[in-house]
Amino acid sequence: MNLYEKLATDIEALVQQGVLLPGERIPSVRQASQHHRLSITTVIRAYVLLESRGIIESRPQSGYFVRARREEPPVELRPSRPDPRPSAVDVSGMVLSTLRSIRSDEAIALGSPYPDPTLFPWQRINQYANNIGRRYATWSVLDDLPPGQPQLIRQITRRYLENGYTVDPNEIIITIGATEAINLCLQAVAKPGDAIAVESPTYYAMLHAIERLGMRAVEVPTDPVEGMDLPSLMRLIDERNIKACMVMPNFQNPLGFQMPDERKRQLVALLTERDIPVIENDVYGELYYGDAHPTSLKAYDTKGIVLHCASFSKTLTNAWRIGWALPGRYRETVERLKFLNTLTTPAIPQLAIAEFLKNDGYDFHLRRVRKAYAQQADIMAAAVRRFFPPGTSTSRPTGGYVMWVQLPEGVDAMVLYHAALERKITVAPGHMFSAVPTYTNCIRLNYSAAWTPEIEAAVVTLGKLVASQQARTGPVQEMSG
Amino acid sequence: MNLYEKLATDIEALVQQGVLLPGERIPSVRQASQHHRLSITTVIRAYVLLESRGIIESRPQSGYFVRARREEPPVELRPSRPDPRPSAVDVSGMVLSTLRSIRSDEAIALGSPYPDPTLFPWQRINQYANNIGRRYATWSVLDDLPPGQPQLIRQITRRYLENGYTVDPNEIIITIGATEAINLCLQAVAKPGDAIAVESPTYYAMLHAIERLGMRAVEVPTDPVEGMDLPSLMRLIDERNIKACMVMPNFQNPLGFQMPDERKRQLVALLTERDIPVIENDVYGELYYGDAHPTSLKAYDTKGIVLHCASFSKTLTNAWRIGWALPGRYRETVERLKFLNTLTTPAIPQLAIAEFLKNDGYDFHLRRVRKAYAQQADIMAAAVRRFFPPGTSTSRPTGGYVMWVQLPEGVDAMVLYHAALERKITVAPGHMFSAVPTYTNCIRLNYSAAWTPEIEAAVVTLGKLVASQQARTGPVQEMSG
Repeated sequence: MNLYEKLATDIEALVQQGVLLPGERIPSVRQASQHHRLSITTVIRAYVLLESRGIIESRPQSGYFVRARREEPPVELRPSRPDPRPSAVDVSGMVLSTLRSIRSDEAIALGSPYPDPTLFPWQRINQYANNIGRRYATWSVLDDLPPGQPQLIRQITRRYLENGYTVDPNEIIITIGATEAINLCLQAVAKPGDAIAVESPTYYAMLHAIERLGMRAVEVPTDPVEGMDLPSLMRLIDERNIKACMVMPNFQNPLGFQMPDERKRQLVALLTERDIPVIENDVYGELYYGDAHPTSLKAYDTKGIVLHCASFSKTLTNAWRIGWALPGRYRETVERLKFLNTLTTPAIPQLAIAEFLKNDGYDFHLRRVRKAYAQQADIMAAAVRRFFPPGTSTSRPTGGYVMWVQLPEGVDAMVLYHAALERKITVAPGHMFSAVPTYTNCIRLNYSAAWTPEIEAAVVTLGKLVASQQARTGPVQEMSG
Repeated sequence: MNLYEKLATDIEALVQQGVLLPGERIPSVRQASQHHRLSITTVIRAYVLLESRGIIESRPQSGYFVRARREEPPVELRPSRPDPRPSAVDVSGMVLSTLRSIRSDEAIALGSPYPDPTLFPWQRINQYANNIGRRYATWSVLDDLPPGQPQLIRQITRRYLENGYTVDPNEIIITIGATEAINLCLQAVAKPGDAIAVESPTYYAMLHAIERLGMRAVEVPTDPVEGMDLPSLMRLIDERNIKACMVMPNFQNPLGFQMPDERKRQLVALLTERDIPVIENDVYGELYYGDAHPTSLKAYDTKGIVLHCASFSKTLTNAWRIGWALPGRYRETVERLKFLNTLTTPAIPQLAIAEFLKNDGYDFHLRRVRKAYAQQADIMAAAVRRFFPPGTSTSRPTGGYVMWVQLPEGVDAMVLYHAALERKITVAPGHMFSAVPTYTNCIRLNYSAAWTPEIEAAVVTLGKLVASQQARTGPVQEMSG
């Protein structure tokens, strides 16, 4: 347990034991710092954590007080109701320029889609890469042809087994990140012009895959807690001639939901019946906050219609872009497309990751990461509740490291994005998560970095920018979401 | 100079000085080995080199003799006359299975498209990668977004300058090998179904790019010494509604020719006039045998219609798959497609290669490689002339490391390929180099590996297999090529 967690737990115990009573003031940050011989930052973290747990609250200019009772989030996110018409997709220009704008070192990168890299075991992976590089000299590109390095494929198979699935190692194809895996899988199942069903909001990587191949997106109503609405999907399949689905059932980016097992089972059963392939993006599957690894669609697949994609970029190292696909009955096509698209995936990083998986306790590493993300999710939710104006609501992620924030009606996330950027704070505007402007009053926040006073200050600033935009725009102008 | 080169030069001097006379027998390999205290292999290499230079010849069961005079190759390759109709392309399955079949460690890989890796400076590149990996920990994927690492882009720009061109560093986009560069460039300039002009025979990577995007190939008559025939190209552009060209003007794979400067200039001028973009695959540009770096189409481009692609995989390291594109006026589109296709190119290898280029004498390394390939080209040509039946002709590569061999009419290269494979020798059958079966009596041989008695024995075996197939098939059945 960290110092700040210990402090928070101690204070929580005092409250539960009735030593500190509701409404009572607790020591100021400075006092607690001197008293416990802890840094100011540690105490702030402890207090923010306590606040996120509903134990204490802060009152402006007065300090921190024991709270009367836990409070529920004031506004619930509702299921989305997107435009049902297929749309050509053209979001990548906007996404690329947005991502570029947030790469400044000085910015607080709440808009980043990538995990904070400091939790990754760089040292070990680099050591393995170095050792393997030394003995690589006599190899040839011929050894690197798809499907990929047998050692890594074996370790991935073993990892699935540890998580409770049996997969066929011969089905696995190593790719340049999950991005390539998703692209190849989509190309294997549909043609230019075809209609593809996606969640709404959806991760823009899904939209990119559709854009790249000149297909069209059909956005399906999606519940922020349970995922894609199946009756709506079935209706759209009939009405819109859907050729394939793309979903992220575990800790969806941006909503963070985990689709319940029963809905996963039903989704696969319904699509199997209609013989419609489904591409499952499971890059966050290992980043669950609960007790057990979530199931994947793949686990319910009897006919090979699920094309499952994943990667190590979100869990182990973002430097090497190693992903993979389990493309079901489309395996041969996906393997050939991999060969056509990038020929091979470099062997050294594959072998380095395989060595790490074999020797270094991937599980131990992941437990640490999951715990950090789960705590940071609480802290971020508490901070948004506290510093954003009324009418704001947040998702409640059960895994991953991103949070969806719906701002009060009429607030324009793109205006917020630009205003925040001037203050060296980045957010991902909701415009990135739909083929047509739908989530214009939403933003996605990344909470993968350890909480700091600087991050808290950034959230405070964002809240003020939202409030000032509300003041400027006056009465509500349009409904959205 | 190597030991065997020194020995060969000494003997050549004796012949030129008249110490050894035409028709005179020279010492046997064993005698020379004892006399000069050199290994048997070294002496064999020296003799094969002398043979390739036309200085000596071997007579079965008799030994080596000084030759009367240099002999020209008996049969010249003629310009190709391919089917002018556009064809859908479906060669990747065959190519992938062929490449797979030749990856056995035990096989003599004359069919490989890849350079022998022993000439690469693995040690240095790995050291740089390791050092960079150590300080990479605080980076984010955001730093890796296209176009690529500025340090590498700077070094590539500098390299072009050393070779006599000025390029705009802002035009360069780093990719996963030249494969991805070619794919992205083609997607930027044409649509599914479009007709694309290629050389005939053409490198199958070009056919793969066309296949991947569902376009059609139009093969253009190509001279084995000067490259694509321009009047034919112009006629096909008018008749077949060509949307783009793909060429490899320097040391084309498989023919090895270097298109003359004047033809390059004309090609670009004619295409500029008709506003047809041309994708230039220049991966062998640095592997010239002559005195100077050849020009590229890019050097003649005034309107941005040349999309120039290259990589380090053939010259520096095949482990990392670092290529690049200079896409002319299609730059923005290619950059966005890169982002969609694989998101980023890993940074560590880019930075390692940049360090090597900056510090380690790329030029020195390349001089060594070029010299080896030039000598091995001579040796391979001499060996094929000697051990293959009459009616065989070979290309005369002026760079790169592959040779095109046209077998006597009626010989089926696919039959030869299978028969050779059983004997653990691989060749690339001509079937791989055309969208429709055209070069069925041709093979491509890779001579990047240093000459050994085992390679010589493999060439002897191939010659015998060709002869025995001739004996079996009897009289000529069809014309081809």
